[in-house]
Amino acid sequence: MELVDRMLRGDRVALARLMSRVENGSPDVPEIMRLINPNLGRAYRLGVTGPPGAGKSTLTDRLTTVLRQRGQTVGIVAIDPSSPFSGGALLGDRIRMQQHYLDRGVFIRSMGTRGSQGGLASATRDVVKLLDAYGKDWVIVETVGVGQTELDVVGAADTSAVVLVPESGDTIQTMKAGLMEIADVFIVNKADRDGAEQMAAELEVMVRLAPKRTGWETPVIKAQAEHNVGITEIMLAIEQHRTMLEDSAELDRHRQQWRRHELMEIIAARIKDRLLESSRNDAILGPYVERVMAGEIDPYSAARQILGNKDLVHSIVVGDEGGLRVTDQPLRV
Amino acid sequence: MELVDRMLRGDRVALARLMSRVENGSPDVPEIMRLINPNLGRAYRLGVTGPPGAGKSTLTDRLTTVLRQRGQTVGIVAIDPSSPFSGGALLGDRIRMQQHYLDRGVFIRSMGTRGSQGGLASATRDVVKLLDAYGKDWVIVETVGVGQTELDVVGAADTSAVVLVPESGDTIQTMKAGLMEIADVFIVNKADRDGAEQMAAELEVMVRLAPKRTGWETPVIKAQAEHNVGITEIMLAIEQHRTMLEDSAELDRHRQQWRRHELMEIIAARIKDRLLESSRNDAILGPYVERVMAGEIDPYSAARQILGNKDLVHSIVVGDEGGLRVTDQPLRV
Repeated sequence: MELVDRMLRGDRVALARLMSRVENGSPDVPEIMRLINPNLGRAYRLGVTGPPGAGKSTLTDRLTTVLRQRGQTVGIVAIDPSSPFSGGALLGDRIRMQQHYLDRGVFIRSMGTRGSQGGLASATRDVVKLLDAYGKDWVIVETVGVGQTELDVVGAADTSAVVLVPESGDTIQTMKAGLMEIADVFIVNKADRDGAEQMAAELEVMVRLAPKRTGWETPVIKAQAEHNVGITEIMLAIEQHRTMLEDSAELDRHRQQWRRHELMEIIAARIKDRLLESSRNDAILGPYVERVMAGEIDPYSAARQILGNKDLVHSIVVGDEGGLRVTDQPLRV
Repeated sequence: MELVDRMLRGDRVALARLMSRVENGSPDVPEIMRLINPNLGRAYRLGVTGPPGAGKSTLTDRLTTVLRQRGQTVGIVAIDPSSPFSGGALLGDRIRMQQHYLDRGVFIRSMGTRGSQGGLASATRDVVKLLDAYGKDWVIVETVGVGQTELDVVGAADTSAVVLVPESGDTIQTMKAGLMEIADVFIVNKADRDGAEQMAAELEVMVRLAPKRTGWETPVIKAQAEHNVGITEIMLAIEQHRTMLEDSAELDRHRQQWRRHELMEIIAARIKDRLLESSRNDAILGPYVERVMAGEIDPYSAARQILGNKDLVHSIVVGDEGGLRVTDQPLRV
């Protein structure tokens, strides 16, 4: 594909067009991903996650400046699953990063949901891959919150930084294992505010109580990203985590598991598409669907009956024509 | 099941326990849902969605007061997929609703993600059903944002109110069809602030440009929920929408489609579980997974090859033992 060739030769416009194809769910997506597959794995993937207003964009901006000073190139993907509501805020963040927009060594892409179910997690995965294939040394993915989509995105990061602010103090009490599992680096941003010391101390206790499988003890770093305080320490912590992953072969293991996860998501999404088609056309499934629609039977019982019937499952999922109808439609996950 | 019997006889403690079972993904869930199925469909389901800080909880509180004055009972489900981050804020909202906590005619449940992927949408669906079966006249579901989970939740509402504030002004420009499709009532809250008039005017233009399939023209109502301004108008709009749905048989149609959607989600989730099991044990799928993990082949191509092979699909999804292994595990979607 000519567009892919141009992108691989460093054409920014081609890169942006390929990203739009991914975002719009173009039928080309599987072919694009097939073509760039040999070029993947060079970029280091950093996730930056935290609540709205924690200063994620400012932090990303400062880390990008440090990386650029070292001559490294950076791709930035900003995701906001709560758009359209917060579209404005996100736009403001982008404007603050304007200095990097003028830098050819940085490529920034904002992604929001477009009101459609699904698609965002898989589109983000593929946009990150494009930046990797394009040759960026680092890809930074910025996400709000830890909903399902975000977790799927965070999972792709080699190192995940979780940014908190003293205001989220109460929240720590309610934080669950999920957040501890995600964080490779904790950042207490806006650390000049009341409660920063206490928050950092509490996080340190939590980290010690819940050590990671890899033995990595998540550092807790106080920062004021806006005033460039703590940025060096954060960068150092990220690099130490990277070194640990590389030296212990954990990086490869993590990336392999992630590729496996991706494969399963794609297959599951395709089977689900097939199921939805079947439920409309299939004379066999029809009666079950009708009884559920009429409220005569609950959906769990109906699912149990359908899935317990070998012929039925075969007919739904495998189909009569031999194998799923494999189209060139992108497999939106 | 004794707990279900007690709940159906009006036992609040039994209701709360059943909700916990749903939230914790207890193996009882399918059985609970089977037992309450005949008791569903009485409650009217109102969705209240909007950005953080728009005043959703205050609005829910005021609408609840109106409904209670009319002698109607209310169940409230507050969902926050961005918890753990915003756990604190949510808690604050709950405290503001304390008056209703003391009212036996109101049942309030807050639900957050527990760091685990999936589960929230299906758990919310089932909690709403419990409140319906328990006999609440109204079930109000409060959500932030319009991510995937929230859309799945909003879909279950008979009437959806979207709450905005003048501050989200810029956002309207970036709002996509998704939000227009969701809203049956638009509320411009905190309407004493600058920009409220303009926002309301813009929303009215948008509504007229994109009429709903049902012919319903989404009203735009200015309110100050905190000062009880606009509450009567909002309640009236909700009731008009309800009357329209009931008179046109749209209510039945919508609920039927929703039950169908639920069935498909449950089946798809179960097949996905089976797929994940297969990928670990199945000697046939193994080589594909290994090549993807090694990065030798991209996941889209591998998915295509796997799904194009009839025997392979049969072996993965149907299994050799005849039908999917149907366990008593709840089918988390």
